[in-house]
Amino acid sequence: MEAGTVFLSLVLILLTARVLGEAAAWLKVPPVMGEMLAGIILGPSLLGWVELNEVIQTLAEIGLILLLFEVGLDTDLSRLVKTGRKASAVALGGFVAPLVTGFALSYWLFDLSLLLSLFIGGTLTATSIGVTVRVLRDLKRHKSQEAQVVIAAAVFDDILGVVLLALLYEFSLYGGISLINAGKVLIFIAVFMLLAPIVAKVMADTIGRYNRRSKIAGLIPTTIVTLVMFFAWLAHMVGAPALLGGFAAGLALSRRFFLPFAAALVQSDGAFVRRIGASMRPIIQLFTPIFFVVVGLSLNLQAVDWTSPAVFWMSICFILLAMGSKLAGAFLIEETTHFRWAVGLSMMPRAEVGLIFAELGRLSGVFDNDIYAVMIITIAATTILPPFMLKWFYGRFGHHLTEKEL
Amino acid sequence: MEAGTVFLSLVLILLTARVLGEAAAWLKVPPVMGEMLAGIILGPSLLGWVELNEVIQTLAEIGLILLLFEVGLDTDLSRLVKTGRKASAVALGGFVAPLVTGFALSYWLFDLSLLLSLFIGGTLTATSIGVTVRVLRDLKRHKSQEAQVVIAAAVFDDILGVVLLALLYEFSLYGGISLINAGKVLIFIAVFMLLAPIVAKVMADTIGRYNRRSKIAGLIPTTIVTLVMFFAWLAHMVGAPALLGGFAAGLALSRRFFLPFAAALVQSDGAFVRRIGASMRPIIQLFTPIFFVVVGLSLNLQAVDWTSPAVFWMSICFILLAMGSKLAGAFLIEETTHFRWAVGLSMMPRAEVGLIFAELGRLSGVFDNDIYAVMIITIAATTILPPFMLKWFYGRFGHHLTEKEL
Repeated sequence: MEAGTVFLSLVLILLTARVLGEAAAWLKVPPVMGEMLAGIILGPSLLGWVELNEVIQTLAEIGLILLLFEVGLDTDLSRLVKTGRKASAVALGGFVAPLVTGFALSYWLFDLSLLLSLFIGGTLTATSIGVTVRVLRDLKRHKSQEAQVVIAAAVFDDILGVVLLALLYEFSLYGGISLINAGKVLIFIAVFMLLAPIVAKVMADTIGRYNRRSKIAGLIPTTIVTLVMFFAWLAHMVGAPALLGGFAAGLALSRRFFLPFAAALVQSDGAFVRRIGASMRPIIQLFTPIFFVVVGLSLNLQAVDWTSPAVFWMSICFILLAMGSKLAGAFLIEETTHFRWAVGLSMMPRAEVGLIFAELGRLSGVFDNDIYAVMIITIAATTILPPFMLKWFYGRFGHHLTEKEL
Repeated sequence: MEAGTVFLSLVLILLTARVLGEAAAWLKVPPVMGEMLAGIILGPSLLGWVELNEVIQTLAEIGLILLLFEVGLDTDLSRLVKTGRKASAVALGGFVAPLVTGFALSYWLFDLSLLLSLFIGGTLTATSIGVTVRVLRDLKRHKSQEAQVVIAAAVFDDILGVVLLALLYEFSLYGGISLINAGKVLIFIAVFMLLAPIVAKVMADTIGRYNRRSKIAGLIPTTIVTLVMFFAWLAHMVGAPALLGGFAAGLALSRRFFLPFAAALVQSDGAFVRRIGASMRPIIQLFTPIFFVVVGLSLNLQAVDWTSPAVFWMSICFILLAMGSKLAGAFLIEETTHFRWAVGLSMMPRAEVGLIFAELGRLSGVFDNDIYAVMIITIAATTILPPFMLKWFYGRFGHHLTEKEL
């Protein structure tokens, strides 16, 4: 019986995502909005036809990891390194600003408890790398300079978010935190991000060399997915988000990836790298919509008491604060105003990362129903509005940025 | 934490399947044997590194359904219909013979109870369509005339097996059976197999017509997987094995499929059908090895008491009976002796279908540890030996059959 339910859920998820995605594209809205709307419609917010379970959630997580793998494939490491300083400024600014202002607003203005205020600040720090990347792709801006800054900043942001989440969780359990543990996790992640692409590159080249001698079909899809899953597991083991493993594997297989010291050791096979792209594309296209539908499924809008004025006003405050503080991060870098706006708008979507914070806050009993509702509204608004704003912004001011594109 | 375990399990499953599959091909053994061995090594029989869970099992089931979809794609419906009489003889003969002789041996010779003897007979009836099809593909014989008979017979056999399983389950619960219910299920399945390909064809042509107007990438992988999953769910709903849905969808999308009455209604787009194959191949190649590894994972050889002489002799009897009775089914048809041997050997593997019977027998308390062990040994032997015999047979006598190939 269980298997039947999963098949039906998959049918509903993939079909609704496709229909609403196409409708969104037809209405000139980023298709990812249609996919998230599919989740809102199918999930507890509206129809309740699809229930989240472990199978669907795992498929969604694989979808996110594969999406980041694809982003890595398209990323030029040397340009990523060059944007490093700007990206860290955006990430740090866009992390500290919502954390501090969110905390201050909750603690002093709304007079909430210390732990609760910290959790609210934490929820506001998140940047959804998945939504951000998909929107830029939908708008065909994912290879622009500002997109490079945004992708790098979102990756940093995700790392900071995971560390903060671990700290807050510790704090909620023991009432204190250990900065040494947090430092350890950060060092692990840094070592992982430095070594993983190199190891992945060596492994991929080994697969490539074996490719000609393989006797059974399907070498590329099985081994490349294995490679990606291996690094996702490794990232998870060092305490990093699993998607970083996908990103690292993608970077390593990118056509522009090079190893300064190991050039003699590894010889890239250009045709092989191109075949990887061709074989992986249908798999990536199959899994990623599941992720965005699951984001929508996780947003339970029925949990919100829409008639409470307190919920309404707090939500307005937090939405403005959440958007403004990400913009503030973008304004730390020395670039044109248009460039800063593009970066700031791209950093706004909270989506899945914010939901993880909110869920943890609810499950640990820190968030009561009202605060949880406020957070859900804030996450929904910061996920749904920025893609429209970004679309409008590029339509109106995109020509100011085109000179800087690839 | 759970997600990390699933990623690691997937890495181990895909990697070991690939390494042992390639090793098998190198040793000139059907690669599918390497994949099942991977499961035996990783599972409870040996290392115990991978534990079966819902996620892995669902992925395996999707793999089997997609494999049958691919088989359907390669199947020529008109030839399938032509082989229908022979295939039903093989299926019925190879179903009734092991059921009756297995029951008789257990009931009268081994003096076992009525229900237990019926369950043993039932376990022996199964034909693993997955293993059979993969071995014929590995031997590059899957388009031969005998393969057509085998595929059709294995499909019939699966339907008969599901009905028998339902009857035995009812009998074990209530001590009686309702032939009306069994008849209902058979009629549902027959209607499904008649209508599903037609509906799938109309749906696929609708997708094909929409293909040119689609605005977002990935139409083929998402919609075709949706279509396949929809029919798998539908098959499951009418009481048929889910894999029949995959087979029906594949048949409908086959290049040689035609609708006698609806030719004016549906117009096939040849280029679209070819693109379906290209897009679906990496997805099918990714999922199917998971299925065969899971077959190996489900075979717990540690559950067997290898020192018991009773277990040993009963196993020998049942292995000989299981193989001989499938061969008897093949000898019902009017063909050359070589043709009958090829069909009989192909019908022998029990694998997953036999395991489902054995598992149900164990869970319902009908099988004690010894009988369960005997069944596991019988299933393992009838799954592992026939591919070798088939390989040897084709090497030695294959030239007698080549005239009859496509």
